[in-house]
Amino acid sequence: MMKGSHSAHRRIPEILSSANPLLKNFRKSLAEGVSHQGWLAVEGPFLVEEALRAKEGAHIHSVLVSEEGLERLATLVEHLPHDADVARVSDALFRRVAETETPQGIAALVELKRPTLDSILREPRILLLVACGLQDPGNLGTLLRSAQAFGASALVTLEATVSPFNPKAMRASAGAVFHVPSFAGAEPGALFAKLRAARVRMIAADPYSPSRISDADLRGPLAILIGQEAAGLSPEIASQADLKVSVPLRAGMDSLNAATAASIFLYEAARQRKFHY
Amino acid sequence: MMKGSHSAHRRIPEILSSANPLLKNFRKSLAEGVSHQGWLAVEGPFLVEEALRAKEGAHIHSVLVSEEGLERLATLVEHLPHDADVARVSDALFRRVAETETPQGIAALVELKRPTLDSILREPRILLLVACGLQDPGNLGTLLRSAQAFGASALVTLEATVSPFNPKAMRASAGAVFHVPSFAGAEPGALFAKLRAARVRMIAADPYSPSRISDADLRGPLAILIGQEAAGLSPEIASQADLKVSVPLRAGMDSLNAATAASIFLYEAARQRKFHY
Repeated sequence: MMKGSHSAHRRIPEILSSANPLLKNFRKSLAEGVSHQGWLAVEGPFLVEEALRAKEGAHIHSVLVSEEGLERLATLVEHLPHDADVARVSDALFRRVAETETPQGIAALVELKRPTLDSILREPRILLLVACGLQDPGNLGTLLRSAQAFGASALVTLEATVSPFNPKAMRASAGAVFHVPSFAGAEPGALFAKLRAARVRMIAADPYSPSRISDADLRGPLAILIGQEAAGLSPEIASQADLKVSVPLRAGMDSLNAATAASIFLYEAARQRKFHY
Repeated sequence: MMKGSHSAHRRIPEILSSANPLLKNFRKSLAEGVSHQGWLAVEGPFLVEEALRAKEGAHIHSVLVSEEGLERLATLVEHLPHDADVARVSDALFRRVAETETPQGIAALVELKRPTLDSILREPRILLLVACGLQDPGNLGTLLRSAQAFGASALVTLEATVSPFNPKAMRASAGAVFHVPSFAGAEPGALFAKLRAARVRMIAADPYSPSRISDADLRGPLAILIGQEAAGLSPEIASQADLKVSVPLRAGMDSLNAATAASIFLYEAARQRKFHY
């Protein structure tokens, strides 16, 4: 059962029943990060604004706002695309759907429009980040944020790696998930064959390598392989790389935070490319 | 009431009552990160091992182990200093004292032995990190971990900044809190006067500065000022700096994660210093 309400430019129906199918879809999708249609489920005005900023890179299909959110976020709601389904619910119902501890009054289902990995691999200045086994969604999101900042072409995560579409990863990415083409769950053999065929050099982050990152040539088509937080890269994955390099650290230190290490690789690559993004 | 138990080399009394003063001190200290004596309160074998590794940099005063921890961590318990008070409790009592969701069977009160900031400022190759307003303990801990990895001399946090001795920050630091001298809650005016008197150059991280970090000279005695996650450095603080520099990012991007930005400053300084730590 729905009853109507108007904002300045659009009619926003109200969902009154917790059994409403749209509401049930939002609840399930927000818990999993992805809807059954394959659309990203995001919460909060910041991520919805980033989806809008991505323009043709993201299509907002459905939006749920709370009564409180409708008042506070009136401008954002006005800017939603005209063909988006927008519905409102009571603050109490919204809290039951939201995954965050302090719900922020708006949630959306967003279809990512991204090029295929094959078409990205045909670009000239490719800089690819490959996450091989990372487990912490905060780390993966931070890494994705750095990937956007340093002009990376795409992020690929291997099997058994936290997904870039994990809800916590999307929040930590600060919206980068809408701007950096991301591909989850790649099979290593197929991915590395594809990179080799595209003549993309593979560089492995290896804290025990005597080759320093600042001495390596990080220009030209490049894929940076980043390992798991504690264990690093598995020997099978590291052996696929054309070169293993380390960030030289103080004696006795063998590691940085995984997202920090990946960000330093991206910075060093960007520095060598003279920050031409 | 206590009853005795023996490991191979030491007698480990058991605490049976939740009203025991040592147990009450552990509970309060673990919640706050610091005991009333000013000792750090840490949980888990990893941080206790790091306190041991710090040698004369840290003095372990008291240790609490659960029955389960005593079996699993027997080697660690054997290596505790002979003058440390070690007591054991039931797994159920330990869970009531622990702050972490999955208690790891050991907790300790550790006195940090660090040089004064004045004596650090007399060292020749000083590289100081000054956190000005950071709020997230995970970010501060990650930054401290990078400070250790890149050979920073010390970390100072200003007033209204999350403490390096916050329990979450200590965990994210991966033990760096025992290795990098850290000073919490500095008054900005007094700190900057002290840095100027010691002829330490102050460099502010400012995403809007046209000066690139890679073009700035980061050798010589240096303090890097890092601002708050969302707002960056306040104008009052930034105006104290000798130089403002940015990490050049892709157009439209104005920021990195705060810990990532600080880590890139530390990496660039280390690179220019040819990784001589």
